[in-house]
Amino acid sequence: MSAEPGTVRPGGRTARVRAAVLRAAGDVLAEQGFAHLDLADVARRAEVGKTTVYRRWGSVTGLVADLLGDMAEQSLPRADTGSVLGDLRANAALVRRTLADARQGPLFRAVIAAATSDARTAQALRRFYDVRVGEWAPCVEQGVARGELPAGTDPSLVVRAVSAPLYYTVLTTGVVPDEAAADRAAEAAFAAAVSGVYVVGD
Amino acid sequence: MSAEPGTVRPGGRTARVRAAVLRAAGDVLAEQGFAHLDLADVARRAEVGKTTVYRRWGSVTGLVADLLGDMAEQSLPRADTGSVLGDLRANAALVRRTLADARQGPLFRAVIAAATSDARTAQALRRFYDVRVGEWAPCVEQGVARGELPAGTDPSLVVRAVSAPLYYTVLTTGVVPDEAAADRAAEAAFAAAVSGVYVVGD
Repeated sequence: MSAEPGTVRPGGRTARVRAAVLRAAGDVLAEQGFAHLDLADVARRAEVGKTTVYRRWGSVTGLVADLLGDMAEQSLPRADTGSVLGDLRANAALVRRTLADARQGPLFRAVIAAATSDARTAQALRRFYDVRVGEWAPCVEQGVARGELPAGTDPSLVVRAVSAPLYYTVLTTGVVPDEAAADRAAEAAFAAAVSGVYVVGD
Repeated sequence: MSAEPGTVRPGGRTARVRAAVLRAAGDVLAEQGFAHLDLADVARRAEVGKTTVYRRWGSVTGLVADLLGDMAEQSLPRADTGSVLGDLRANAALVRRTLADARQGPLFRAVIAAATSDARTAQALRRFYDVRVGEWAPCVEQGVARGELPAGTDPSLVVRAVSAPLYYTVLTTGVVPDEAAADRAAEAAFAAAVSGVYVVGD
């Protein structure tokens, strides 16, 4: 979630072209929003032939879907602090830093806004969060195995509960949550999980 | 939060014009999104003179700000079930119904999307939630007074914690939370509040 899409990675010309195009697309999203995303403009910014961009990504929504896929692949691995509360705090801090980041914050807000009216972007966004939640779920599973959380606790619900208040604050107030708010998000998810709110099934 | 903006209310011609215009604006937002909102189109739908609409609201963002103000004024009063958990459950159910509503759900998503790139809409949205949070805050204050929650619990943090996972789910997955998710949102906020996570200051 906090990796910069389009940073230089090993690979041939195809990989370099993709990196340049995704970086340019991310720049436009962060600076101007989804409505201003245009394949010809992205091609020019990326110094890549327009035909290549049209052939490979086809549409703006195809480009955003690939960008989100790339961001999911490159995003940071989960924490392993030895306690579930420590791990959830690390997750909350990472989410907060992403939302506070001068490039990634606006980029996420732009994609979330676009997803409210574009089904393909919504699907790509859902997939992005599925990957992130899957990455962090073992923190909760370990917490259950260590007896810190009740058996049957749904890992996905706990991980999403950490992010929810941070995204909610940004999206409904425009204010980026501070570090205390991130800690509170982790502590609230932990307290609710301990009380059994996220035990499902049976 | 669940009141329909622009329903018929008593008042003179000015009030009727405002109701018709705000209803038309809400319809466009719900059906087509913020990008399609146009004062001339709203005037035609509302069967009101274009000049009146331009003179009174000035701009699309002025119109959305007035719509949100009207929705806040008309939104339902808080519950008073006798227990803070009961009240939080009622609040969660109301938020869920709003997000699930065929008109209000898309309307809120459209306004939240617009707020990511429009400062005046963001301010109007912030004010809307301030009014709603203020309406429900006494539920938490009573819970503290009855000894159900620790002294020093911040009412606003608890009320916002109920909404957060419901909005987060809608905005990042496109899926409207079900009744079980609404209950879980209330129970999680309650458990976290009981544990003292929302106690602030000294």
